Amino acid sequence: MSTKTITSRAKHASYEMMTIKEPVRNKALFEMADALEKHMDEILAANRADMDRAREREKNSQFLDRLELTQQRISQMARGVRDLAALPDPIAEMEDVRTLPNGLLIGKQRVPLGCIAIIYEARPNVTADSISLCVKSANAVILRGGSDAIDSNRVIADIMRSAAVQCGIPADAIGFVDDVSRQSATELMHSVGDVDVLIPRGGKELIQAVVREATVPVIQTGAGVCHVYVDDRADTEMACRIIVNAKCSRPSVCNAAETLLVHRDIAERFLPGCAAALRENGVELRGCERTRQIVPDMLPADETDWATEYGRLILSVRIVDSLEDAVSHIREYGTGHSECIVTQELSHADAFVKMVDAAAVYVNASTRFTDGFEYGLGAEIGISTQKLHARGPMGLRELTSYKYIVIGSGQVR
Amino acid sequence: MSTKTITSRAKHASYEMMTIKEPVRNKALFEMADALEKHMDEILAANRADMDRAREREKNSQFLDRLELTQQRISQMARGVRDLAALPDPIAEMEDVRTLPNGLLIGKQRVPLGCIAIIYEARPNVTADSISLCVKSANAVILRGGSDAIDSNRVIADIMRSAAVQCGIPADAIGFVDDVSRQSATELMHSVGDVDVLIPRGGKELIQAVVREATVPVIQTGAGVCHVYVDDRADTEMACRIIVNAKCSRPSVCNAAETLLVHRDIAERFLPGCAAALRENGVELRGCERTRQIVPDMLPADETDWATEYGRLILSVRIVDSLEDAVSHIREYGTGHSECIVTQELSHADAFVKMVDAAAVYVNASTRFTDGFEYGLGAEIGISTQKLHARGPMGLRELTSYKYIVIGSGQVR
Repeated sequence: MSTKTITSRAKHASYEMMTIKEPVRNKALFEMADALEKHMDEILAANRADMDRAREREKNSQFLDRLELTQQRISQMARGVRDLAALPDPIAEMEDVRTLPNGLLIGKQRVPLGCIAIIYEARPNVTADSISLCVKSANAVILRGGSDAIDSNRVIADIMRSAAVQCGIPADAIGFVDDVSRQSATELMHSVGDVDVLIPRGGKELIQAVVREATVPVIQTGAGVCHVYVDDRADTEMACRIIVNAKCSRPSVCNAAETLLVHRDIAERFLPGCAAALRENGVELRGCERTRQIVPDMLPADETDWATEYGRLILSVRIVDSLEDAVSHIREYGTGHSECIVTQELSHADAFVKMVDAAAVYVNASTRFTDGFEYGLGAEIGISTQKLHARGPMGLRELTSYKYIVIGSGQVR
Repeated sequence: MSTKTITSRAKHASYEMMTIKEPVRNKALFEMADALEKHMDEILAANRADMDRAREREKNSQFLDRLELTQQRISQMARGVRDLAALPDPIAEMEDVRTLPNGLLIGKQRVPLGCIAIIYEARPNVTADSISLCVKSANAVILRGGSDAIDSNRVIADIMRSAAVQCGIPADAIGFVDDVSRQSATELMHSVGDVDVLIPRGGKELIQAVVREATVPVIQTGAGVCHVYVDDRADTEMACRIIVNAKCSRPSVCNAAETLLVHRDIAERFLPGCAAALRENGVELRGCERTRQIVPDMLPADETDWATEYGRLILSVRIVDSLEDAVSHIREYGTGHSECIVTQELSHADAFVKMVDAAAVYVNASTRFTDGFEYGLGAEIGISTQKLHARGPMGLRELTSYKYIVIGSGQVR
């Protein structure tokens, strides 16, 4: 099926989805979860094909780790789908209902966005997450994954679609683009009228290409140059624990820290021990000049470092003269994802929280918490780094919009 | 000042705006309102220059009406600014505050969007509305109006900025682009990092150009091909009153109706009288074949008519076989703005409201009500016809975003 056919059918199906009642959508989720477990062998076989191809292409171990599915991971996937079924219906709500002086009854009804397209890269769990989030929120979805995971993605989508259709979900509401060429992505970016929102998930280049080219509404996700700022009033032991966690617990993800900012008055006391702890965890450090005076044997960090999302065990370190300087650095190099201050001084925490403009601002906690599950939203369809519509982890509510409903008895203006 | 300088200064000022307390912002609104009235003669003189130029260019009366300022209109402008001051602070709210099982305290803080750019055409009141909405919501604003109203816009912006600065608002938070060339608009569309959201207000071509070209986040506004559907269970007297109002009370605006859809079973009873009433109000009718059999002397309506926002006293009329057909027509030709059903049958109203995907869906009331003032939002910065972020009239709340604030005591993941 051509991409054009898939999108126009999905748009059509999205109207049907809007009228499907919650029990039907939830039943579909449970059936989809069961089907994933029942067809585990099929999924594993498809995934093996993807893994073999990836090994032939000599992809690195991080890449392989993201691509690989195991029995346990598939069970987790199924559990995630079931967890979503248990969450409240995101489109049941009627908000701000009131009667205007002229007698009109007005309210905002939560409604699905309609037809959501997702362009993503190597992780096959995005397929399951996206389908289940969209079915729960009564949206149609179009999946356009990357070539690396195409076998896994296809079989997961097929299994989930079959299960959903048996419960009354229209087949076209789960669109799968088999064509992994550049062209199919470009078509999705220009499907004005069919695609209500396009969410790119993946590396910086993918996201930039979508932002540049798309004429359909887009939500930018993911790019994360996150900072941990260690204030002069920080508990140094806590600061060390937080930066080690923020950098090392999963360096490839977007909420991992890339730069450590340290107030000059605490640098000599804090940096040597912290640098040792980071190095014990395999982190390569790159520092500003002042940092290197305190911790020798470090490569110098330059402009490029401050702006880089390493995605691996490298950390840039900079000493700043004040909280304001830390904020200026974050404004210049941050991507609006997750930023952290470590301090025991309430007024410093307040100032940082007020001045830093990011999806998530942390006081004395790791940036790694920016995540739909951690925030209690259930699965997430991405982490928005823009300010329109949704910010931070996007769960079910973020896949809805509203419409005004106005009931009158013949009022004119 | 170059457009680049204006945007980067406005971005910088937007950080300062975020920290300005509500009493200061409200005082600035009152001072701006007073200044508008105090400098009325200056504004009227500038507007006369715009009007003279427009007359030389032989603009039509509708255009001149939109451009013209009078003492009364300036007083209205000032009153609008004062009314905004009285509304609650849109950025005070803290939402969804809760403690996670791991002890993290999490909440969503309403925050300004940051730096908002507006590209607009002939109406100088947009200048005053935009400045006051942005100051109230603690945003910086960049105004790039059209050449036709440049003198009026400039003097209004200057007067309001001077008054605001005296209250402590940074001058750069009210940016005015004097250069009305195509290039300045293009620069704004590509000011990634400086402009947080771009709102085009004006004709279809302007909006399409922005959607096609912009790399900054955009909110689409305004295009309104609005329908009134007269159901077989309609009160015909009410239906006639509503369509006459929706078409005639102000045909140039986006919430005016462009197409009348009539159920076949009521057509013969309803159409002759309604057509007469519309024609008495100066409306030119264009009909489908079946309509023309009932009401003769009508031009035929074709595909182009169904898709046209006339913006003047022309109405296309189509007979449909069912409510579902009316909805199909609206799905095909509507722009997601405002749609109306006239019916006395509750189940029909329910079905229409569920199936029609638009910013505002009306039962037995004129589409003309889609408006920030009418909805009780205060002034509006535009009417969104997209589904992301905001839908329908955009007031103060729609100029905000949120950030997650997470307070911990050393939690790591």
